[in-house]
Amino acid sequence: MTRVAFLGLGAIGRPMAKHLAPPRSTLTVWNRTSAKANAFAAETGAAAAATPRQAVQAADIVITCLPSSREVEEVIGGADGLLAGMRRGTVLVDCTSGDPATSRRVAATLADAGVAFLDAPVSGGVSGAERAALTVMIGGDATVLERVRPVLSAFGSTIVHCGPVGSGDALKSVNNAMLAVHLWSLAEGLAALAKAGVSPRLALDVINASSGRSNSSQNLFPERVLSRAFPRTFRLALLDKDLGIAAGVAREQKVASPMLQLASELFRAAHTELGEDADHVEVVKIIERWAQVEIA
Amino acid sequence: MTRVAFLGLGAIGRPMAKHLAPPRSTLTVWNRTSAKANAFAAETGAAAAATPRQAVQAADIVITCLPSSREVEEVIGGADGLLAGMRRGTVLVDCTSGDPATSRRVAATLADAGVAFLDAPVSGGVSGAERAALTVMIGGDATVLERVRPVLSAFGSTIVHCGPVGSGDALKSVNNAMLAVHLWSLAEGLAALAKAGVSPRLALDVINASSGRSNSSQNLFPERVLSRAFPRTFRLALLDKDLGIAAGVAREQKVASPMLQLASELFRAAHTELGEDADHVEVVKIIERWAQVEIA
Amino acid sequence: MTRVAFLGLGAIGRPMAKHLAPPRSTLTVWNRTSAKANAFAAETGAAAAATPRQAVQAADIVITCLPSSREVEEVIGGADGLLAGMRRGTVLVDCTSGDPATSRRVAATLADAGVAFLDAPVSGGVSGAERAALTVMIGGDATVLERVRPVLSAFGSTIVHCGPVGSGDALKSVNNAMLAVHLWSLAEGLAALAKAGVSPRLALDVINASSGRSNSSQNLFPERVLSRAFPRTFRLALLDKDLGIAAGVAREQKVASPMLQLASELFRAAHTELGEDADHVEVVKIIERWAQVEIA
Amino acid sequence: MTRVAFLGLGAIGRPMAKHLAPPRSTLTVWNRTSAKANAFAAETGAAAAATPRQAVQAADIVITCLPSSREVEEVIGGADGLLAGMRRGTVLVDCTSGDPATSRRVAATLADAGVAFLDAPVSGGVSGAERAALTVMIGGDATVLERVRPVLSAFGSTIVHCGPVGSGDALKSVNNAMLAVHLWSLAEGLAALAKAGVSPRLALDVINASSGRSNSSQNLFPERVLSRAFPRTFRLALLDKDLGIAAGVAREQKVASPMLQLASELFRAAHTELGEDADHVEVVKIIERWAQVEIA
Repeated sequence: MTRVAFLGLGAIGRPMAKHLAPPRSTLTVWNRTSAKANAFAAETGAAAAATPRQAVQAADIVITCLPSSREVEEVIGGADGLLAGMRRGTVLVDCTSGDPATSRRVAATLADAGVAFLDAPVSGGVSGAERAALTVMIGGDATVLERVRPVLSAFGSTIVHCGPVGSGDALKSVNNAMLAVHLWSLAEGLAALAKAGVSPRLALDVINASSGRSNSSQNLFPERVLSRAFPRTFRLALLDKDLGIAAGVAREQKVASPMLQLASELFRAAHTELGEDADHVEVVKIIERWAQVEIA
Repeated sequence: MTRVAFLGLGAIGRPMAKHLAPPRSTLTVWNRTSAKANAFAAETGAAAAATPRQAVQAADIVITCLPSSREVEEVIGGADGLLAGMRRGTVLVDCTSGDPATSRRVAATLADAGVAFLDAPVSGGVSGAERAALTVMIGGDATVLERVRPVLSAFGSTIVHCGPVGSGDALKSVNNAMLAVHLWSLAEGLAALAKAGVSPRLALDVINASSGRSNSSQNLFPERVLSRAFPRTFRLALLDKDLGIAAGVAREQKVASPMLQLASELFRAAHTELGEDADHVEVVKIIERWAQVEIA
Repeated sequence: MTRVAFLGLGAIGRPMAKHLAPPRSTLTVWNRTSAKANAFAAETGAAAAATPRQAVQAADIVITCLPSSREVEEVIGGADGLLAGMRRGTVLVDCTSGDPATSRRVAATLADAGVAFLDAPVSGGVSGAERAALTVMIGGDATVLERVRPVLSAFGSTIVHCGPVGSGDALKSVNNAMLAVHLWSLAEGLAALAKAGVSPRLALDVINASSGRSNSSQNLFPERVLSRAFPRTFRLALLDKDLGIAAGVAREQKVASPMLQLASELFRAAHTELGEDADHVEVVKIIERWAQVEIA
Repeated sequence: MTRVAFLGLGAIGRPMAKHLAPPRSTLTVWNRTSAKANAFAAETGAAAAATPRQAVQAADIVITCLPSSREVEEVIGGADGLLAGMRRGTVLVDCTSGDPATSRRVAATLADAGVAFLDAPVSGGVSGAERAALTVMIGGDATVLERVRPVLSAFGSTIVHCGPVGSGDALKSVNNAMLAVHLWSLAEGLAALAKAGVSPRLALDVINASSGRSNSSQNLFPERVLSRAFPRTFRLALLDKDLGIAAGVAREQKVASPMLQLASELFRAAHTELGEDADHVEVVKIIERWAQVEIA
């Protein structure tokens, strides 16, 4: 049975890891807050490790699912880090929505230790993770991917090889950048219509039957903005980070990208104004505040 | 039988007018290029008028479908204009993608002559017009709308009352502004990915299964950009105009709208660079030129 | 002796009017808050009128100096308005920082009554007004300007004919738009340097000896930002309005102007956040808040 | 006598090096195109070295003045590079307009070899270099600066310690970013005025007496744009690079900076359109092309 180590039992990581629990694999988990790891172990039959190093010592494949590439670098290094524990031949699959430059640096470091690296961010949200219906975007060696594909298929229904290391990160970030641009621009448009006397609900109905529709207009605004529900499912801080990554890819590739860069700056400002706990859809509240109108 | 005058037999107007041809209504058409009107009349049993004034003299309802509000004002005024021909009690339904300020001015002028005005831009494209499946966005008096609804239902499957005069224009412009923002930002993102080694086709597949999807990613890019087909179905000049209208609504309503305003300026520059005949999707070529890569 | 009516005794208007007081001219003043007009009259020997109409009945030249073109239109119309009082042959010189479109509309209305109109916004601030050292930017008929030049030279040391009606407004707005762009971009740059460990004062010294210098870096930042003085000399609300006018001129002239439009949206947002009383330099506080640093 | 090595005899470097020629110092020069170094040596009494390594073997202080940090890293590494030649205790003063991140990396590498590093970009242009009137912005250890100050004062009239390594680069980049923003925004404003019938020359005269003035309005536009001279003194490619550095500093410091980022993207696009040889002021031609007007 494949021996899997899973690090990071957050909102997405936990349901992903659950699909890998015994008898599917021999699973060891680690989480910064160890109570979470212990509870998970008690519930699923997985083992809980005290440190990243201990978690990976017997692993064939290591999966990380952390807030950002910074945390990935943190769990790799140090006396209790992954690098101190992984044997040659292990594969590290990083499901973090990471940044390509860090992923490339990490991959180079790991290669020196005989460990292969794949960046493998996922999309599909908590519900996709629970239903084992995630899309997994892979950057790295295609033959390494084939070795770990059976493990990834435990939680991913679509596993896509995107290109060299960092490609998965890049694609994930661009998808999320589109989400961010759609959210912000739609809020501007609906705020203007609301002040001009057009009902946002009616406007969304028309747009959703027309050429201006997007996932944001079809799902997020009706369910979360019109209802004033603003559930906290995906932190603004993380979308701001993803948008920053996409904007960075565009600059690194010398692509003139005024829309992405502007969106990135606006989200940065909104993130500062709304704080670390705000949900990504709450950026709408900043546009509403500036416009002095509610989209409802 | 209702007597209808239809002015403007362009790409959208012609199939709309066809649904109103005898025996459905007593139809008189006018077009700036009179040969088009004569050919239409010969084909459909409608009458062709030599001037706007003649077209509307016996009409209960007058429908205009012109490139912009400027042309609407032009056909209204003057010795041969609509105003010289319309009787009190006539309703003017303007299916032009117009601007709210001009529509309000026109409505005020017509009101003095006892003529009611509705702005009524449509969405659904040539194919929607042919299948009588257009969405019609109405601004103006709701009771006037009820009087003309049977006529509009000849080409419109969804007829929505949006609010006071100008509301239909405002909503149409915001929908098209979203289209414009989606096109431009997606081109930036895909250009960056292409240069980073990620296939645009693969990227679109992933985005279309994820939170960044839009009508542009699902339809326009696969069919028109990846294929390099760039069919000329909707002129960039018109989308630039619509985006400018949406940006103007936002400013008039004092909505801080950096994304809409930036998009408007970028489309203005692209319009100048690509000329009057370019299709709206061809803006992608400007982003490609600046990025020195092809999204294919 | 020339008979002058002066309407609008604000921060700039009051010292301007003072240069026209007897014995220089026969002066009648009007102000929305009549106490100000009465105090001015008592101090200077001018007459105070109860209404705009009364103020201008015996005037050869009427000077308006109001917050915006909206107030100019308000004092012109109505039973007690300027138009009800001015005789044919009067010249209206509007020193408001107005918008060209309204000025053209006003000029057309006045022309029907035999009154000539010049837009004549001024620069130089309160101190320039006190020292009779204003620059006056004139739009309108050059021969009309020559008739009133002796009067304008009472407060203006540089009187420039810019072009047709609205040209003075356009030029004034572009000057102020540059001021706005310089303020905002310098605050961004200095906030970044401050966080990177470079003293803003030292940075300003270097910039002021180099190619990046501007009136903002040479005067406003050292005197008002580094000192945290932020004196209230020119309201942000007015600079926001001026920037909006410049952005409107650029759009009306079909000039792709992403920088001006973005600046206009940022100032709009800052104006909403800071309120009606804030000074224009206080926009720096918004950039500081978003950056979480003080430029000091 | 101090032994100085000078690498990079470009437009600025050459006149700088000249001030260090014998008898002022014992000077060895190196240039990628060796003919330039040989000619310089013949003219000044300096020695010309065949490689960076040879140039620095006997040097107390090494000065680099190259197009960008990339070239600095290139001359440092390799068998013939600086690092292979410099003795412990040497100081490397990099007068390149570099980027802070690279400078910090270079400084760390050199520190391991016992070589101190100062980033020391200059402003003042060719004429400032010729007149020994440059401003030198220093990042790095202040005590190291004091050791080399006598050498730097050969070409620099103002030598400013800005902060830790990278501070000089950061400040230089922000100064140049201001220049870039001023150029672009002024071109937008003057293009709008020109189309509105206001003479750009007259507009500049007024702005230069008012609050919107900048080095660009006072010097660059009158001398280079109105005259259509567009002399090639400072390449657009380099200003684009500098603006990108400033934008990068702002992002690294988490400063929401929509104006700097937008300017950076516009310059990137203009750089692509105008090519590698264009002068920085030629960006005005892009704004003119988009506006279809000449600022003259």
